[in-house]
Amino acid sequence: RSLRFLAGLIAFHFHSFFIQLCYLMILSLVGYLGLKVSKPRNPVRLNDLDLFYTSVSASTASSMVAVEMEVFSNSQLILFTLLMFLGGEVFTSMLDLLFAGYNLQNKVSINPFPPTNHANQIELGLVLSIPHSDSENHNPCDSNIINVASCDRLKYNCLSYLTYAVLGYLVMVQFVGFSFVSLYMTLVPSARQVLKNKGIKIVTFSLFTVVSTFASCGFVPTNENMIVFKKNSGLLLLILPHVFLGNALYPPCLRLLIMVLKKVTKKEEFSYLLKNSVDVGYEHLLSDLRCCFLVATVLGFNLIQFVMLCSLEWKTKIMEGLNVYEKVVASLFQVTNARHAGESVFDLSSISSAILVLFVVMMYLPPYTTFLPVREHEKDVNKRNEKSVVDCLVLSQLSYLVIFIILICITESKSLKEDPLNFNVLYITLEVISAYGNVGFSTGYSCARQLKTDATCKDSWVGFSGRWSSKGKFILILVMFFGRLKKFNMKGGKAWKLSWPV
Amino acid sequence: RSLRFLAGLIAFHFHSFFIQLCYLMILSLVGYLGLKVSKPRNPVRLNDLDLFYTSVSASTASSMVAVEMEVFSNSQLILFTLLMFLGGEVFTSMLDLLFAGYNLQNKVSINPFPPTNHANQIELGLVLSIPHSDSENHNPCDSNIINVASCDRLKYNCLSYLTYAVLGYLVMVQFVGFSFVSLYMTLVPSARQVLKNKGIKIVTFSLFTVVSTFASCGFVPTNENMIVFKKNSGLLLLILPHVFLGNALYPPCLRLLIMVLKKVTKKEEFSYLLKNSVDVGYEHLLSDLRCCFLVATVLGFNLIQFVMLCSLEWKTKIMEGLNVYEKVVASLFQVTNARHAGESVFDLSSISSAILVLFVVMMYLPPYTTFLPVREHEKDVNKRNEKSVVDCLVLSQLSYLVIFIILICITESKSLKEDPLNFNVLYITLEVISAYGNVGFSTGYSCARQLKTDATCKDSWVGFSGRWSSKGKFILILVMFFGRLKKFNMKGGKAWKLSWPV
Ligand SMILES: [K+]
Ligand SMILES: [K+]
Repeated sequence: RSLRFLAGLIAFHFHSFFIQLCYLMILSLVGYLGLKVSKPRNPVRLNDLDLFYTSVSASTASSMVAVEMEVFSNSQLILFTLLMFLGGEVFTSMLDLLFAGYNLQNKVSINPFPPTNHANQIELGLVLSIPHSDSENHNPCDSNIINVASCDRLKYNCLSYLTYAVLGYLVMVQFVGFSFVSLYMTLVPSARQVLKNKGIKIVTFSLFTVVSTFASCGFVPTNENMIVFKKNSGLLLLILPHVFLGNALYPPCLRLLIMVLKKVTKKEEFSYLLKNSVDVGYEHLLSDLRCCFLVATVLGFNLIQFVMLCSLEWKTKIMEGLNVYEKVVASLFQVTNARHAGESVFDLSSISSAILVLFVVMMYLPPYTTFLPVREHEKDVNKRNEKSVVDCLVLSQLSYLVIFIILICITESKSLKEDPLNFNVLYITLEVISAYGNVGFSTGYSCARQLKTDATCKDSWVGFSGRWSSKGKFILILVMFFGRLKKFNMKGGKAWKLSWPV
Repeated sequence: RSLRFLAGLIAFHFHSFFIQLCYLMILSLVGYLGLKVSKPRNPVRLNDLDLFYTSVSASTASSMVAVEMEVFSNSQLILFTLLMFLGGEVFTSMLDLLFAGYNLQNKVSINPFPPTNHANQIELGLVLSIPHSDSENHNPCDSNIINVASCDRLKYNCLSYLTYAVLGYLVMVQFVGFSFVSLYMTLVPSARQVLKNKGIKIVTFSLFTVVSTFASCGFVPTNENMIVFKKNSGLLLLILPHVFLGNALYPPCLRLLIMVLKKVTKKEEFSYLLKNSVDVGYEHLLSDLRCCFLVATVLGFNLIQFVMLCSLEWKTKIMEGLNVYEKVVASLFQVTNARHAGESVFDLSSISSAILVLFVVMMYLPPYTTFLPVREHEKDVNKRNEKSVVDCLVLSQLSYLVIFIILICITESKSLKEDPLNFNVLYITLEVISAYGNVGFSTGYSCARQLKTDATCKDSWVGFSGRWSSKGKFILILVMFFGRLKKFNMKGGKAWKLSWPV
């Protein structure tokens, strides 16, 4: 039985992995075809690989730029908005919920007294397991056979309510954000003027930017990303919350929402969701304890980055022309984005190496990285110590990243030799980790940094990887997919014993 | 009882940590004073920090070079040899054994029937715990009180025999190595001529090099390290085994030696050592299984490096002038040294970045890193899941390394801006990881790589860190100590949950 359970778990794992991979691939392909057939703003010739790269970048919420953003026409920007909306983690997790709810409904209607087979439940796509020993709560879902039907009913209702809550959250947050940003763009002349000069519609810009930020993608319709708005502190402050709301602080906010809903509606389902948050199986519903420590960790990381950025860069070129308030807001915006949204107000290639190394670490750390000094109730699944064949063959995340970096060093070896100021291992590492973390930071490429000046070189607003060879770009596409699906390989490298001497 | 055991364990841990730290500090200080009072070969003015740095580098077996090696006189080289001999891991582990044996002897003579208190045993410095349930082997050390005395006698004998085995191994290997190397240097004119030109005595050179290699230090009395001997394939092949024998392959060799001794002497103690290798508590005595996988891992790593080095560098500048045989031997020597001894036959700054990144990984991995797809018998100690306060505050090794790298980037920020081809983050990372892994690889510093040519710049044969600011050097001294004592912090970062989304 234990083995069947394990097999079921692995099957579910692969199943879910392939569904998500296919979803992202189809999204990327559709996006690519859409970009291909639609007309860009000016009749420019766009490389196929670059288009696909950009489409993957939008679908995986990575925002690595290989084509200048202002090349795209209004309809193409709307296509991007759609891709980012459909590719965002909050949205895809809602699809998971819908799928699980649909499966559960089928089960309930077809078979009102199903055998309590755990392996079957797992194949449904979402584990909604209930602690059987929890009899204090008058839980209808204990091992009593008579209650199975009412238990399934409760489960189904929980899933439905949770789905509605997530949907409501998704729509409300983005709608409010959209309203505020478009209001700001309409009212503030300096910002409006920028869009007017670039020929971008205010509505498109607002929708695009808010969806992009909430999905942690980080594309902005302007070539310069947010650098062009670095003096518009108001705009930065309006966008800033969405960086958190759709990413690292999504679990605490969702929990808060459910608590409010429970208070307002007094429904049993919401208290059930709050009490059994981990057992519900929705990956973004974390326990109270975890949420608290998550908030603390996020604030801690941002504080460290903020202090370092301000202390090292306060008086340097990148902050020139800003007053104290603008410097603080811009720095805050920049460091917040280092964890996952990836919008930039500063030119990263001018920032000191110490900060770049810090950014690399921050980009590497997954969104829900938590300093958790206390032991949390863990599922039995995690406790098993056996090593399966897959466990043994799979390496750790870092090993893969190093392999990717080495591969890029090989594909770009010529440039590394001839153009060492643009092509150096720190920038390549930053690019790879940025793609892996689906962040989108990039140091860009500057003709001024070339040692042997190439007369044909033209500066453009594309990311550093936009200047790589096709092989390098192809590897980075793999890294983006790998990074977007990293949750399926969080436990790799188990077969390795890194110890000294014992 | 469980708590007392834990407290004892932690106490032992700190105890042992501080003893080793003090030992290394005293060794470094004595070395520094010795270098300070003795006369260098030419009357040159040596910086105090550089001398201390070099002394630490020898004591911690790191071989980071801040002063050209040919500056040192014959007596100073002999002092170095002594430092390296006393600081090597095999020698210090033998000291541990002697200490434990001395404690056990006291215990046996003072108190023939001691209470079987585990916490007490631990404080002795070495755990020699015997599996109590192992009654099949007619083990005198089962829980039977009557056997305690004979059990302690057996333990004591085991320790003594093991100590003799280690001592014999240490002396024999180095003596044989010394004989062969001095024979080679005497017989081969090209090698002899090099030493003659540099005014280094053959005996000093041979002893120094063999001791240095066996201790995984990697200092060589020549300025150019082994680059000057890159055509002397015979010498490289003579030195090569010592890289393994004193480091990654020490456990399998020790086990082999004990097996031979058991065959020859037929003593019960040796079979006891072989059967209970893990329980003996000598950190370098590993189980059969672990030894096999360790050998496989070491060979695997070297093969990967060898293939990559040859495929990327076969026809480049660094291999110029070598024939196929010499290329193969030199490559083999270089990649073997990347894991821990750190002698170089190639100029690392001319090697492609892909290989340097690979070297960084190899230097980071501790010597006994093993691919172990099967579960090994683990001590109960490792299974405990509780997080102590210390566990929570301690970060993982990688986190500390990143912090060190960021600190160096801050102390050297001026050079990073003005001299970006010499000072780049890859070279700094390589230097820090090299110090942490006690390897000693360095890319060096080249005046030709300066962007703004500085007329006062003079090329010299010191490592890259030799050109750092005093603060940077001081941090690197800390890194060397940290790296040498890394075994005490192999389980850090437990309080951090790096997962996404769950
Ligand atoms: K992003
Ligand atoms: K070394």
